[in-house]
Amino acid sequence: MDTSRRRGRRPGGADTRAALLAAAREVFAEQGYAGATVRAIAGRAGVDAAMVNHWFGGKQGLFSAVMELPGTVRLPTVLDTILGGELDGLAERIVRTFVTLWDDNDGQFAALIRSVSSQEMTATVLRDFLTNEVLGRVVTRIGADRPELRASLCASQMVGLGMARYVVKLGPLATADVDTVVRAVAPTLTRYLTEPLDG
Amino acid sequence: MDTSRRRGRRPGGADTRAALLAAAREVFAEQGYAGATVRAIAGRAGVDAAMVNHWFGGKQGLFSAVMELPGTVRLPTVLDTILGGELDGLAERIVRTFVTLWDDNDGQFAALIRSVSSQEMTATVLRDFLTNEVLGRVVTRIGADRPELRASLCASQMVGLGMARYVVKLGPLATADVDTVVRAVAPTLTRYLTEPLDG
Repeated sequence: MDTSRRRGRRPGGADTRAALLAAAREVFAEQGYAGATVRAIAGRAGVDAAMVNHWFGGKQGLFSAVMELPGTVRLPTVLDTILGGELDGLAERIVRTFVTLWDDNDGQFAALIRSVSSQEMTATVLRDFLTNEVLGRVVTRIGADRPELRASLCASQMVGLGMARYVVKLGPLATADVDTVVRAVAPTLTRYLTEPLDG
Repeated sequence: MDTSRRRGRRPGGADTRAALLAAAREVFAEQGYAGATVRAIAGRAGVDAAMVNHWFGGKQGLFSAVMELPGTVRLPTVLDTILGGELDGLAERIVRTFVTLWDDNDGQFAALIRSVSSQEMTATVLRDFLTNEVLGRVVTRIGADRPELRASLCASQMVGLGMARYVVKLGPLATADVDTVVRAVAPTLTRYLTEPLDG
């Protein structure tokens, strides 16, 4: 690799990184995660496309940075772990992976929520990503009626669990061990995924 | 009423209002909602206690302003409506009142979440209020084991419903009518309130 290029044309690497983050937020919001290209984001930022790999390791890493996800999380791997495998244990895998992941990064969950609630653009990016990259994969697994509503109900419980455990730090839910949380919450997701929704 | 006093000793009413909000945030966080007095809050702000009534109509209105709750909401009345009455319809009343209330004020739900996720002190205030003024009343109604965990699970689903419907505006859950949401979500609360939590 051409290291002179990797180090960027512009002096002030931190500026390049910030420009890429701002451009990525815009392009992800406009084009969605799937539609946004590294080239378009770099172009919007006015820097060379190689800078995306240099600073973020690629599109997925740039997305993680925009969403304030923990730097150690390999999103595609995590999603494959949760969403691959049998439908049978899906609810438990969702809850267990979510809690295990964020328990080590509770400050970053608050940062994600802060960003989503204060920037319309970040909310748009999260909505698109959840809908198309996460819930869309859940929806195809659901045999029951109204799969999109079911998937969004699952998401509502998981976001709320994160809010209660990491942001508001509410009562026993903030300190309960992972198994307790899984046993309490997974049946909710199982109902949303598979059981009748009408009372 | 002495109108010269109502108009305040200090010029610049907006300053007085802002000082009261800042002081209230601190005192609510330190003393809890029940422990905080109008006198202590006014004292911290360096203004006359009558200013609290003038600007906010009392402690409850000041709390609503700190939490960015819709100005039209009479919190004690709302809580009595939800938490009074039979345990039987409690889950449905919680969901229906929550959605009806915030559907008209979705921007303020986002403001509440923004404030809670960006200010540790607001999170503390909300935690205390939910725990002692809301969930504490739910807990006393629950005949099942681990009532505090059950109440916090209910809160997690409701906060998550608000996040999905008003902040992220996720899929069908953002646009579903109130009855659909009630039918889908109330059984979750019923399980949290009354059914076995272990799988």
